[in-house]
Amino acid sequence: MGKARLEAFSDGVLAIMITIMVLELKVPHGNAIAALSPLLPVFLSYVLSFVYIGIYWNNHHHMLHTVERISGGILWANLHLLFWLSLFPFATGWMGENHFLSVPVALYGVVLLMAGVAYWVLQQTIIASQGEDSLLARAIGKDFKGKSSPLLYTIAIPMAFVYSWMSQCIYVFVALMWLVPDRRIEQAIAKRLE
Amino acid sequence: MGKARLEAFSDGVLAIMITIMVLELKVPHGNAIAALSPLLPVFLSYVLSFVYIGIYWNNHHHMLHTVERISGGILWANLHLLFWLSLFPFATGWMGENHFLSVPVALYGVVLLMAGVAYWVLQQTIIASQGEDSLLARAIGKDFKGKSSPLLYTIAIPMAFVYSWMSQCIYVFVALMWLVPDRRIEQAIAKRLE
Amino acid sequence: MGKARLEAFSDGVLAIMITIMVLELKVPHGNAIAALSPLLPVFLSYVLSFVYIGIYWNNHHHMLHTVERISGGILWANLHLLFWLSLFPFATGWMGENHFLSVPVALYGVVLLMAGVAYWVLQQTIIASQGEDSLLARAIGKDFKGKSSPLLYTIAIPMAFVYSWMSQCIYVFVALMWLVPDRRIEQAIAKRLE
Amino acid sequence: MGKARLEAFSDGVLAIMITIMVLELKVPHGNAIAALSPLLPVFLSYVLSFVYIGIYWNNHHHMLHTVERISGGILWANLHLLFWLSLFPFATGWMGENHFLSVPVALYGVVLLMAGVAYWVLQQTIIASQGEDSLLARAIGKDFKGKSSPLLYTIAIPMAFVYSWMSQCIYVFVALMWLVPDRRIEQAIAKRLE
Repeated sequence: MGKARLEAFSDGVLAIMITIMVLELKVPHGNAIAALSPLLPVFLSYVLSFVYIGIYWNNHHHMLHTVERISGGILWANLHLLFWLSLFPFATGWMGENHFLSVPVALYGVVLLMAGVAYWVLQQTIIASQGEDSLLARAIGKDFKGKSSPLLYTIAIPMAFVYSWMSQCIYVFVALMWLVPDRRIEQAIAKRLE
Repeated sequence: MGKARLEAFSDGVLAIMITIMVLELKVPHGNAIAALSPLLPVFLSYVLSFVYIGIYWNNHHHMLHTVERISGGILWANLHLLFWLSLFPFATGWMGENHFLSVPVALYGVVLLMAGVAYWVLQQTIIASQGEDSLLARAIGKDFKGKSSPLLYTIAIPMAFVYSWMSQCIYVFVALMWLVPDRRIEQAIAKRLE
Repeated sequence: MGKARLEAFSDGVLAIMITIMVLELKVPHGNAIAALSPLLPVFLSYVLSFVYIGIYWNNHHHMLHTVERISGGILWANLHLLFWLSLFPFATGWMGENHFLSVPVALYGVVLLMAGVAYWVLQQTIIASQGEDSLLARAIGKDFKGKSSPLLYTIAIPMAFVYSWMSQCIYVFVALMWLVPDRRIEQAIAKRLE
Repeated sequence: MGKARLEAFSDGVLAIMITIMVLELKVPHGNAIAALSPLLPVFLSYVLSFVYIGIYWNNHHHMLHTVERISGGILWANLHLLFWLSLFPFATGWMGENHFLSVPVALYGVVLLMAGVAYWVLQQTIIASQGEDSLLARAIGKDFKGKSSPLLYTIAIPMAFVYSWMSQCIYVFVALMWLVPDRRIEQAIAKRLE
C-alpha cells in the first residue's frame, strides 16, 4: 500500500483547517481602524493556531518519510489525529472571541493535548509496524519534545482557571519549542543512506 | 486513463466534507462550560459522521487499489457516491441541532442508505469493467457487510419514528462493523501477487 | 513544464466548489418534514450544479490528457475557466432561494454561458499550442456539443423573463447532452497509439 | 526531501483561498437585478483578489521548478507566505463591503505588501539554499518587478487616506504588471538544459 493518498488526504484536511480558521476572522461592519480592534484577540489566536497547524504538517511530513507501508492501523491512527486537529478552528474561534477567558483557554489546551496524544499514538503505531530496527524509533531517540509537550499542556489546562495568561504563555512556548523542524529524522535518514 | 486524478478529486471532496461538518459546531456566545453543553449532540453527530467519512475514504482507497483503468461509467458512479456523501454535513447538522429527534434521525438514515447504495453501484461498475476474472469480485466474496448495511439502514429509518435512540444505535453498530479495514482486498491482492 | 500541478489545482478548486454549493443548503430550524420543503428548490439547484461541475471536471480531465506542455497561456485560460466556475455556488444559491424566478434563472444562464465560453477559450488555446497536427483538434472534430451549448444558453437567458421554466428545461437538456463523457478524445488517443 | 508535498499543500491552500473569497459574495435576499447592484464592489474586489491569487500560484509554480531539495527554512518561508495569502479573503471582503473606503483599502494594501515581502523572503531562502550558482538567482536577474511592487504598495497605503481610487489603480497596475508569467525562469531553465 502506498502512502501517497494518505499524505494527499492529510494535506487536504490540514490545508482546509488553516483556511477555515481564518473564517472566524469575520469581516467587521464599520470601516474605521477602530472596527479592527475587537478582532485583535481573534487574530492572535489565529496566528497561534496557524503556527501549530504548520508544525503538525511539518512534522507529519518528516515522520511519513520514514514509512514505507501503510497498514490499517496507521490509516486509523492518522484519521484520529486529523479528528483532533479538526477541532482547532472551533477552539481557536471560541478562545479569540472571548478575549482569552479561562474556560475557552482551558478548552484550547484540551484540544492541543488530545492532538499531541493522537500524534504520539500515530508515532507509536508506525514504530510498531516497522519492527525492531525502526528508522523512526532511532530518529526520535528519547523524544524529549514529544514527552514534555503533553506534560506542559496538562499543567496549562488547570492553570487557565487561575492565571489565564500563563496558560497562553505555555502554549506559545511549546509552539516555539517545536518551530525548529525535526532534524533528528533528517539525520537518521542521512545516516542510514551512508 | 489513469486513476490518480480520480483519487485526488475524491480525496479533496472527502477532506472538505470532514472540515465542513465541523463548521456546524458553531462557536458559542458565552464563555462558561455551560455554553458548551447544547453543543454536545452536535459534537456527537460530528464524531459519528467523521467515522463514517473515514470508513468510506478507507474502503474507497482499498477498492481503487484493484482498479487499473477508469472508464466513463466508473467516473460517474464515483461522482454519484460523492454526491450522497456531500449531503452528510447537512444531515449531520440537522440531526445534531435537533437533539436526535425522529425526522432528522430518519433523514440521516436516508443519506446513509443512499451513500451505501451508491458505494455498491460503484463496486458493481468496477467489477463489470474488470470482466470475468475480477480481482475486486473475488476480494469482496459474499460481501456480507455490504449487503447487511443497507438492510440495517432500511430498518433504522422507520424505526426513528418509534424509538429514535434505536436507530442511532443501529448507525453506531454499522459504523463499528465497518471500522475494521477491508482485509479481504489486501488478501486478494497478496494472493494474486504470489 | 508538467501538467500535474495544473490538474491538482483545478481538482482542488472544483472539489471545493461542489462542497461550498452544499453550504447553501442551510440546516433548517424546525425538526418536521415540513421544515425541508422550502429547501426543495435549493436542493434541485444543487443537483443541477453538481452535475454541471461533474461534467466540467470529467471533460477537463479528458481534454488535459491530450496536453503535454503547459504554456503560460494555458495556465491563464485555465484560471479564467475556474473563475467562472467559482461563481456557480453564488448563482446556484440565488436561483434556489428565489424558487426559480426570472432574474436569478437568467443570471444562472449567464454564468453557464461564460463558463462555456471560458472552456472553449481554453480548448482553443490548447489546440493553438499543439500546432498543426493537434491531437485535441482532431479529437473534438466538428465539436457539435461545444458549439450548440453557448447557443442554447443564449436562448435560455432572455427566455427566463418570459417562461422561466423553459430556461430551466434548456439547462437540464444541455447537462443531459454532455453527461455522456467525451468518447471522441478517448478514440483519437486510441487511434494515434495504433 | 521531495517537493511534491509542499506543492500539494500550497495548491490546496491557494485553491481554498479562492473559493473562500467567493463566500463573501453573499446570496442577496431580493430577486430583482437591483438586488445585485450592492454586490458590485464585492464582486470587483473578488476579481482583483482572484487575479492576485492566480499570479501568486503561477509564479510559485515557476519558482519551485528551480528547487530540488526542500529545507526546513524553505518549508517555513512557504508557510509564512501562505499565512499572508490566507488574509486575502478577509481584506477582500472588508474592502468590498465598504465600497472601497480609505481604511479597508489601506488594509488591503498592507496584506498585499506583506504577501509580497513574504514571497521575496521565500525567494531569498531558496536562492541561499542553492548556493553560489543559483538557477533561481540567475533566472530572476535584477528582479525589477519583485523590487518595484513593494515600493508601489508602500505608496498606495498612505495614499488610500487621500485618494482611495488612486490606491486601487496602483493595485490594478501591479496586478497587470505581473499578469505576464515569469518567462525569465522558463528561459533560465531552457538555457541550462542546452
